[in-house]
Amino acid sequence: MTDTSPHAAREAAPQRFERTALFTLARDLLVHAGLEAHIAAVVADLLIQTDEIGVTTHGLSMIPYYLPELANGNMTTHGTHDVVADHKVTMVWDGNGLPGHWVMTQALATCMERAADLGMAAMAIRRSHHIGCLSTLTRIAALKGFVCYIATSDPSGEWVAPFGGTEPLLTPNPWAVGYPATDHPVLIDTCASITTVSKVREHINTGRPFANDWMLDAQGRATTDPNVVNTTPKGTILPAGGMDHGHKGYAMGLMVEMLTQALAAHGRVEKPTRWGANVFLQIMDPQAFGGLEAFTSQVDHLNAACRANTPVDAARPVRVPGDRAAMARRQSARLGVVVPDEVLTRVQACADAAGLTMPTPLPSPG
Amino acid sequence: MTDTSPHAAREAAPQRFERTALFTLARDLLVHAGLEAHIAAVVADLLIQTDEIGVTTHGLSMIPYYLPELANGNMTTHGTHDVVADHKVTMVWDGNGLPGHWVMTQALATCMERAADLGMAAMAIRRSHHIGCLSTLTRIAALKGFVCYIATSDPSGEWVAPFGGTEPLLTPNPWAVGYPATDHPVLIDTCASITTVSKVREHINTGRPFANDWMLDAQGRATTDPNVVNTTPKGTILPAGGMDHGHKGYAMGLMVEMLTQALAAHGRVEKPTRWGANVFLQIMDPQAFGGLEAFTSQVDHLNAACRANTPVDAARPVRVPGDRAAMARRQSARLGVVVPDEVLTRVQACADAAGLTMPTPLPSPG
Repeated sequence: MTDTSPHAAREAAPQRFERTALFTLARDLLVHAGLEAHIAAVVADLLIQTDEIGVTTHGLSMIPYYLPELANGNMTTHGTHDVVADHKVTMVWDGNGLPGHWVMTQALATCMERAADLGMAAMAIRRSHHIGCLSTLTRIAALKGFVCYIATSDPSGEWVAPFGGTEPLLTPNPWAVGYPATDHPVLIDTCASITTVSKVREHINTGRPFANDWMLDAQGRATTDPNVVNTTPKGTILPAGGMDHGHKGYAMGLMVEMLTQALAAHGRVEKPTRWGANVFLQIMDPQAFGGLEAFTSQVDHLNAACRANTPVDAARPVRVPGDRAAMARRQSARLGVVVPDEVLTRVQACADAAGLTMPTPLPSPG
Repeated sequence: MTDTSPHAAREAAPQRFERTALFTLARDLLVHAGLEAHIAAVVADLLIQTDEIGVTTHGLSMIPYYLPELANGNMTTHGTHDVVADHKVTMVWDGNGLPGHWVMTQALATCMERAADLGMAAMAIRRSHHIGCLSTLTRIAALKGFVCYIATSDPSGEWVAPFGGTEPLLTPNPWAVGYPATDHPVLIDTCASITTVSKVREHINTGRPFANDWMLDAQGRATTDPNVVNTTPKGTILPAGGMDHGHKGYAMGLMVEMLTQALAAHGRVEKPTRWGANVFLQIMDPQAFGGLEAFTSQVDHLNAACRANTPVDAARPVRVPGDRAAMARRQSARLGVVVPDEVLTRVQACADAAGLTMPTPLPSPG
């Protein structure tokens, strides 16, 4: 999408950086804040992988949120998870407040090994810290030929009302599934509410209402106003389906809380107050069902039919989830990794405070 | 909800019947159409269980649709499923066109046995016939303390366009999850599109538009008109989220087709033309995660918080999925099983054709 208007010409294109420079900065910031070096390297790598697929809200952008968590001890700096239960095919881990990227790297490796051996494996994880971009994680398993489902909730968070209600109770409850296709993995990454907490904050910060009624005020009236989450009593984010068919998003949200909290034997009952993540992870090996070749053939066939579907708007062809990530990744490899100015400003402040030098942007290709 | 208006007083209350009478009628109709007796008994029982929980669209109502399928050989009358693959935790079955209630009864029993032993089990099933009401099936496992997930698609059906597209490609792709709670199981039963094929047919038959834009015409305009599925070219049912955030329903639909078709190594690639059902079934044992007691405690806690949530409309308290089914079931046990007049009319025609007698309705309690 090239905008050739004079206005656009005056606007600076987003700056791009060498992957290695961003990775080094992220890792060094985390280490400076006390995170053990080998954990910091894993977290930094996954954050930059997230920027590489174009999900810039969940990449380097997270560093300024993680650093105070490391400083105040809410994010654990050393050690490893505990195994609460291990029944081979099913497991429960306690993340001990460790960075979610680190916990999930271990969890994915364990579940992939079990699934390769047994056909399928699942794990419920309590007390991880934030696990970042779900499709960065599902992609790891999908690239190895697995179906990977991840759901996460934060039992300390209350943002979404049950459908028909008005009081915040559930988190947006994201879930994602990644699975192999011939060209690149399908990466579904969505949530049970119409929009997310970070989008609400973004719209509050920029003073923009939502395009449609994505929020509910405390009196139960649908609204475009993100500020209803700051009133007393608080408003809420509407479940997917909104006022019309929000029972569908509500159902999805209940399922995510059940998988992530009830199976983990830890959740809202314990009334946690710290930012954290409960997780449900499941890996399936198509070889243990009808075979990877047949699996990929069905997926490729349906993906092709989706992309060939006559679009509502001729300028916007139908996409399969994962298409945009694959394109962003190719561009990142060729041109460098985009970091939005707003992220740069916040990360610059962290770098200054830590006495670290910001990397130099790559020269603009044009 | 008692409507005491004079108009309502003149309207006949729906007729109720003894469970045994309805079961006998359903079974005898199926047997008369050629279905093996022990299979007919299982199908009939599950159909009446479905009426008992108030899902009258998927109970006895299905008999007039199944009988011609038995007569023309699309629904298999004898025999059993084939095991395509068995890796203990994961399985693939071929339903051989047998009634889905029968196939699913066997599949549930097998997966529950495996899950009790191994913690979790999953099965992809190709070429079943229609499996009926998903929550009637998930309820069987939830009552035994399991988490039960079922998704189904029909690779011969095309009703929903991928988000941003205009041509029918996917089925509504229902999915359900049932899991234990202390009072009664939570029964989530939903689908990836806003509405279903049977609701579209109902609205076409009664000449009523939908309350909101749940359909998309062939030119890509949202509409309340169900008749767009009969135009040339055809319109479609919108995915959950509609024009605003239908990418969420589209994602759900792709996931259901992947689970039910790609894992089963049978789907749209084979271009089936007969009414059928592909299924994905997964059973998890909470005992193999954090324990059933802890599981139930978390579920009960969240359910109570949902029901206590201040409602938008004071007359409509927040429900947990499964609450309405539990209430309908209690009423069915006390007062008899409701059969809507429209269903009675169609079933009467089947009974007449088979030379069977319709049961006598129970005397009205009022």
